[in-house]
Amino acid sequence: MAESGDRPDGRVERGNRTRAAVLSRAVQIASTDGLAELSLGRLASEVGVSKSGIFTLFGSKQSLQLATIEAARAVFVQHVVGPAREVPDGLDRLRALCSLWLDYSRARVFAGGCFFSAVTAEFDSRTGPVRAAVVDSYAAWSRHVRSIAARAVDSGDMVEGTDVDQLEFELTSLLEMANTLSLLHGDDAVYERALAAVEDRLGRAASRPERHRWAHRAGAGQR
Amino acid sequence: MAESGDRPDGRVERGNRTRAAVLSRAVQIASTDGLAELSLGRLASEVGVSKSGIFTLFGSKQSLQLATIEAARAVFVQHVVGPAREVPDGLDRLRALCSLWLDYSRARVFAGGCFFSAVTAEFDSRTGPVRAAVVDSYAAWSRHVRSIAARAVDSGDMVEGTDVDQLEFELTSLLEMANTLSLLHGDDAVYERALAAVEDRLGRAASRPERHRWAHRAGAGQR
Repeated sequence: MAESGDRPDGRVERGNRTRAAVLSRAVQIASTDGLAELSLGRLASEVGVSKSGIFTLFGSKQSLQLATIEAARAVFVQHVVGPAREVPDGLDRLRALCSLWLDYSRARVFAGGCFFSAVTAEFDSRTGPVRAAVVDSYAAWSRHVRSIAARAVDSGDMVEGTDVDQLEFELTSLLEMANTLSLLHGDDAVYERALAAVEDRLGRAASRPERHRWAHRAGAGQR
Repeated sequence: MAESGDRPDGRVERGNRTRAAVLSRAVQIASTDGLAELSLGRLASEVGVSKSGIFTLFGSKQSLQLATIEAARAVFVQHVVGPAREVPDGLDRLRALCSLWLDYSRARVFAGGCFFSAVTAEFDSRTGPVRAAVVDSYAAWSRHVRSIAARAVDSGDMVEGTDVDQLEFELTSLLEMANTLSLLHGDDAVYERALAAVEDRLGRAASRPERHRWAHRAGAGQR
């Protein structure tokens, strides 16, 4: 049983490594050039594997696109959703979630900025399973922000009756815009602008703003 | 001199009509499928003119893309910037500008929603003259919003010391997000959400909120 990588489970392992390498390249290409630009041939040449090998792993361009979206979701969870869980529940976690999103965009985890912003704009006027996966990813993020916001209301951190849907809309607007303008003008100052607006908005929704270190900035220079 | 459309100025007139017909189709294609999808051949077949005729008018795909951006700017001015000029200077005009933008997106003046949002996402990771024209269009709109906001400060409508750049960032974030989500989920309620947030933000910046009919909504259901 100790011979080599040619036994069946060695092949599986190599397949997994190739799959990971292909998807790691695919999310970058999709974030800058679009999901439509993904092709088995281009990935084979850029990753240095055979086109037939990639075909065996993914089967079709559409399956590759869907797997690329899944891979991007995992990266997003690793950089944004996961680390926010380390922060105590409530308004501080909601603020951390926004701040981590801005860091994720600014750090160019994906070369083209937020992966989902890029592919949303690409697919918003199309139909089909790839569009459905894009819509689903976006909806999952919105639901996540709303659930963190709802817990901040339940915990008493935000005033009762806070319109969580409205808050989520406003917060995610600011994040998206910072990503868009940073890509457009190459100017990182927009991330500070977005964070200031997020903190101002959350500070106004806070039932006890004095409890949150960052909320002391709220309102400063905003008017 | 009365013979026909074959005299030189008749040809010029026909050329202008063809140019207008091509650009009118081109802005729609670009808004849904992207500027990269514009081709002389596709436009010739969709508009029903010869490919050589289109080539004579535009010369190259890149010139066609640049002319398409110019044409979209004219449409945008006609629907948003122009009508806002009818509203008295100050905070009311700033609010009208935002409201007109939301109407322009909601009415699908361009089938793919805001033309500039669509092509910005397409070109934000590219280089070249088309990207430069996209960036320039976007910057012109930002400057316009800031200038209207600055006049609202000068007129005494907004409190002195209002950070006009921050305000412009926040307002345009809300507009963009409404456009994005409406395209993604086909749900027009986001436009009401965006307008409520715009009015809330402007109401807070107003030196005399009671002077603005719409500002009475400000804060209602926002917390």
